Amino acid sequence: MTLDDLTREKDRRVRDRAVLDLLLDEVLVGTLATVTTDGRPWAVPMLFARDGDRILLHGSTGAGALRQVATGAEGVLAVHVIDGLLMATSMFEHSANYRSAVVRGPLQRLSGDDAVEALDVISDGLIPGRRAEVRGMLRKEVSATVALALDITDDNWLLKVNDGDTDEEFFEEGVWTGVLPIRTEYGEPQRSAWLDDDVPVPPSIEALRDNDHRSGTKR
Amino acid sequence: MTLDDLTREKDRRVRDRAVLDLLLDEVLVGTLATVTTDGRPWAVPMLFARDGDRILLHGSTGAGALRQVATGAEGVLAVHVIDGLLMATSMFEHSANYRSAVVRGPLQRLSGDDAVEALDVISDGLIPGRRAEVRGMLRKEVSATVALALDITDDNWLLKVNDGDTDEEFFEEGVWTGVLPIRTEYGEPQRSAWLDDDVPVPPSIEALRDNDHRSGTKR
Repeated sequence: MTLDDLTREKDRRVRDRAVLDLLLDEVLVGTLATVTTDGRPWAVPMLFARDGDRILLHGSTGAGALRQVATGAEGVLAVHVIDGLLMATSMFEHSANYRSAVVRGPLQRLSGDDAVEALDVISDGLIPGRRAEVRGMLRKEVSATVALALDITDDNWLLKVNDGDTDEEFFEEGVWTGVLPIRTEYGEPQRSAWLDDDVPVPPSIEALRDNDHRSGTKR
Repeated sequence: MTLDDLTREKDRRVRDRAVLDLLLDEVLVGTLATVTTDGRPWAVPMLFARDGDRILLHGSTGAGALRQVATGAEGVLAVHVIDGLLMATSMFEHSANYRSAVVRGPLQRLSGDDAVEALDVISDGLIPGRRAEVRGMLRKEVSATVALALDITDDNWLLKVNDGDTDEEFFEEGVWTGVLPIRTEYGEPQRSAWLDDDVPVPPSIEALRDNDHRSGTKR
C-alpha cells in the first residue's frame, strides 16, 4: 500500500522537503505507530529529533513498545501541529489549520558510538545548548537507552498543510467566520524547591524562550 | 499482546478513568494508528471527541486511511499533552512532564441516525455551542462523512502521567534544575476579510477562550 493509496486530500499535500524539515524540527513529540508481533496496531508518543535525512528516537531498553521495533520492523512516526480552528457558516465546512507529517520506514537500532552520537543529537534538537550545562552521559546510561533511526527518503513521507480562511463562497450575512488561532508557548521557568536562589536560569532555557517566536507552536 | 506487555514505566501508569476522560476531553487531535491490509503500520492525525464510553472520529468517505478501518479493523487512538520540560543535572535524567493515553479496539462505522448524532457530538466536543450558530448538516454532507466509534472498555487503554520536578537526589551545586512549562492557548480570533465589521465574535469562540484556563493546553 503506497502513500498515495493512503491519502485523499491531495490538494493539501505538500511535497516540499524543506517544509517537512521545519515541521519535524518544531515538534517535540511524535507518535510512533508499529505493528506488534501478533499483527495488531500499537502507538506510543515519543520525544524525537531530526538529524539531516533521518529521524532519531530514543527510549528505555526495557520499554515494551520499543522491543517490538528494535529489530528492523517498520514504524511510522506521525507528527502534527494545530494552528487554528476554521470557523465556517456550516458545521460541514468547519475545519482546522494544521501541519502534519507521517514518515514510514524500517527502524534501525543504533549501537556503540552511533548510539552515543544519536543521543547527543536528540538532546541538542530538543534543548539546544543544555548538554554543555550538565554532565555527559555515563556508559551505563547509554547502555540503558535504545536509540533508533528512521530514514527520510524521497518517497516515504506524507506532508499536509492547511493554512487558510474559510471559503468566501459560503458567506452568509451575519454569521461570523474566520480563524481561531492556537499557539503553544514556553512559560516561566519553575526552579526546583531545593535550588539556591542565586543560580540563574541557564542560557539554554533563555534561548528556547527567545526562539519561541520561531513557530509559536513548539510542542 | 496485552497492554501490560507494551509498557514498562509502570510507575507512571494511571488507572483512574476520570483522568483519562479529562485528557480525552482536553485534546483536539489524536493520532489514529492502524494496520493496513498489507500488514504495515499507518497513522493519521484526526480530530475526535469523547462520548461517554466511546471515542468518536470522523473523516471523508474517500480517505484512504479510513477505508482501511471502517470495516471493523482494530485501531489505536493515541493522544498526548506535553506540559513541560524537566531540566535535570544530567542529560540522562532530563525528561518531560506529560499526559498520554492510548486506546485500542475495533473501529465501528456508524450509519444513519447514529452517524448524524455522532457528528453532532464531535462538533459539540470540539467547539461547544457552535452548532446553534450555523446551519445544520445536509443529508449529502452526512453521506460524504464517515463516523467511527472506538469503545473505551475496562482494559483497552493505557494512561501515563508524569507531573513532577527533577529528583533532589541528583542535586548539584550551581546547576539550574526545574521545569520549563509548555502551554497552549487560543489567540485573538481573526475574522474573514469579507465579513462585515459589525458581526460580533460568536459566543462559542468567547466560551472556548474563557475556558482556556481549564487546561492551559487545549490541543
